[in-house]
Amino acid sequence: MSDAVLELGKRARRASRVLATAGTEAKNAGLLAAAELLVEQAPEILAANARDLDAAVAGGMAEGPLDRLRLTEARIDAMAAGLRQVAALADPVGEIIDGWVRPNGLEIQQVRVPLGVVAIIYENRPNVTSDAAGLCVKAGNAALLRGSGTALQSNLAVAAALRAGFAKAGLPEDALILVDDPSYEVAVEVMQLTEYVDCLIPRGGPALIASIREHASVPVIIDGDGNCQIYVDASADQARAIDIVVNAKTQRPGVCNAAETLLVHAAIADEFLPRVAAALREEGVELVGDDGARARVADMGVATDDDFASEFAALKLSVGVVPSLDAAIEHVNRFSSGHTEAILTEDLGAARRFTHEVDAAAVVVNASTRFTDGEEFGFGAEIGISTQKLHARGPMGLKELTTAKYVVWGEGQVRG
Amino acid sequence: MSDAVLELGKRARRASRVLATAGTEAKNAGLLAAAELLVEQAPEILAANARDLDAAVAGGMAEGPLDRLRLTEARIDAMAAGLRQVAALADPVGEIIDGWVRPNGLEIQQVRVPLGVVAIIYENRPNVTSDAAGLCVKAGNAALLRGSGTALQSNLAVAAALRAGFAKAGLPEDALILVDDPSYEVAVEVMQLTEYVDCLIPRGGPALIASIREHASVPVIIDGDGNCQIYVDASADQARAIDIVVNAKTQRPGVCNAAETLLVHAAIADEFLPRVAAALREEGVELVGDDGARARVADMGVATDDDFASEFAALKLSVGVVPSLDAAIEHVNRFSSGHTEAILTEDLGAARRFTHEVDAAAVVVNASTRFTDGEEFGFGAEIGISTQKLHARGPMGLKELTTAKYVVWGEGQVRG
Repeated sequence: MSDAVLELGKRARRASRVLATAGTEAKNAGLLAAAELLVEQAPEILAANARDLDAAVAGGMAEGPLDRLRLTEARIDAMAAGLRQVAALADPVGEIIDGWVRPNGLEIQQVRVPLGVVAIIYENRPNVTSDAAGLCVKAGNAALLRGSGTALQSNLAVAAALRAGFAKAGLPEDALILVDDPSYEVAVEVMQLTEYVDCLIPRGGPALIASIREHASVPVIIDGDGNCQIYVDASADQARAIDIVVNAKTQRPGVCNAAETLLVHAAIADEFLPRVAAALREEGVELVGDDGARARVADMGVATDDDFASEFAALKLSVGVVPSLDAAIEHVNRFSSGHTEAILTEDLGAARRFTHEVDAAAVVVNASTRFTDGEEFGFGAEIGISTQKLHARGPMGLKELTTAKYVVWGEGQVRG
Repeated sequence: MSDAVLELGKRARRASRVLATAGTEAKNAGLLAAAELLVEQAPEILAANARDLDAAVAGGMAEGPLDRLRLTEARIDAMAAGLRQVAALADPVGEIIDGWVRPNGLEIQQVRVPLGVVAIIYENRPNVTSDAAGLCVKAGNAALLRGSGTALQSNLAVAAALRAGFAKAGLPEDALILVDDPSYEVAVEVMQLTEYVDCLIPRGGPALIASIREHASVPVIIDGDGNCQIYVDASADQARAIDIVVNAKTQRPGVCNAAETLLVHAAIADEFLPRVAAALREEGVELVGDDGARARVADMGVATDDDFASEFAALKLSVGVVPSLDAAIEHVNRFSSGHTEAILTEDLGAARRFTHEVDAAAVVVNASTRFTDGEEFGFGAEIGISTQKLHARGPMGLKELTTAKYVVWGEGQVRG
């Protein structure tokens, strides 16, 4: 472990102690000052971003990633608006989650407290620097951020504005520490900073997740794949089902809560599959199917198990026909990435069995998978969507950036 | 990864699917049948235990570990009683933790569900086999247990009784799978069974924890050290403080919630330290101290930073004198293992600051640290005490062996 990274950890820990007991007004003032400075320093931020973009273009970056890297005045305004929105949310810290009195008179309270130091390793998008730091600070945490090398100049400029804003409101500057060495070795050191990092949230693709699984020794919340599946039951309202499937697949195909698989009960497949296929193809969706699907829809490619396991993140959908609800549940659990699975049905028993037996962060009945999202759930903002089962499962907002502490009030009790 | 361990993982996953939807009555029946068979099969279990004990004695095992390995009829009865007690606890599965309606009409419920497959790696004590499996099954999980090689025959015999009991009640036998290869390599494979293990809880010493930190890629809850500290404030009721300190140090010195450090405010140190030292020495406690402590108590050895950082788990206590509440909080946070820290005070402001600023699973005011315990907290039973911040912090009972699932009820909503 390098001294430089240890020193960052120490500084983050020190800041986290101050933030842990900072009042709501101080934290909000810090967020609002940071928002103001982001807008004021937009020229410097855009200049830094231009340097990143130049280097990225010279390095041959594709248009998709380039667009994610690019900042504009409007995007900086949106980052500032995000900070103001977080300032307006309720402070989760201090909530009494539970409390009771023991027969011996001990009063036990379970109180919501900040995690401490939250590390986030992310890719390319400079807006994550601002969004993540804002959420961490509102929940009383110090944020230790490690973005990608391609966005380093942009991130440094954004971080400078935020740090100055926090300081202006009397919060520690180190509420946000940006790791300014973007090497892989340093990222691995951050994953192993067990003494100083209370929680690591990776925001990135499968390569980052694999690296975290290999190297991380700090506690991690995995924001993993979304291989979301929709099962259309025999009793489904078919017109509604077509709207939902088309929405879930096409409304924003690149995101984790978009649908990747459509399963249809055999009893309605003859009627439903050609209709939904036509509607999907009209939106430009490529369909691949199992034998049952291809028997009912012309010109459909073969869907392999790999397809059913894939998050295409594109206008492509795997289609299968299942003989029963049991088979649907089995297929869904077999290929689930633990994100969002949906059933479309008018049958109460089927809905109850599906919601009970499917193992995922979110199980949706008669709605689009696209609703699994912090904003859509009403959390006001989102730090990610957990596909693991410990600590947080599903969309994560401010509460998921906290932990609990037991406070035990006695009057001299000893154990007999 | 060996096929044998993968196969165990698959079997556990299959059993977990059945357990996840098993009703409370079925699970309770399984626990009661297992308790009955434990008692019935006590002769076989004791014979197996005798083989383990013979091998351990031949291998030169010390009396402490030998005693933890030893089963007796009374200990088997206690294991059975433990299972019956868990059967009598409320089933955590199915609890609606939270629920709300979105402006678009989506109804969101957060429902408590089992984790799935819980792996436990533990040392020496065969009673953990029964205790851990009972809690896992009551919470709807399959238990994948890997005990130490020294207890393998005992564990196999206990597991056979439990598995037969589960089967008798119609639950899957594989609700409990005991890993019957006690090699280190297989333990490491269990730590990396990411596809099948939802949560790993190690129960053991620092060497096991270090190995978990190095090798585990599955989500882990660390049941770590307890370097519990007691700060006696200037305003403390001194007679009560002596009782509490003596209880916390001596009532059961080998356990994680026993006190390891005593800090005393300088303003009362002249009076309080000689009194508490005399009371502790009467109970056979060895004291080591900093300069301030040694100036006030004769014949006290030097306490180094290593001592202040140590969980002695023995009749030994580090003693320090601090000039202020601030210094006490700083010392406590510096050396805390995140388990339990106590303040003894009559000053409301001091109690409030200590409970707010000390970062630990449990912060105790005017009571013994020995109360941080699942039974003492009223959880009915305990699977461990988490010293990490994610998922569970502090004593863990049935609830901590569950996760949550969002169930979203719609009527055709799509995202605009």
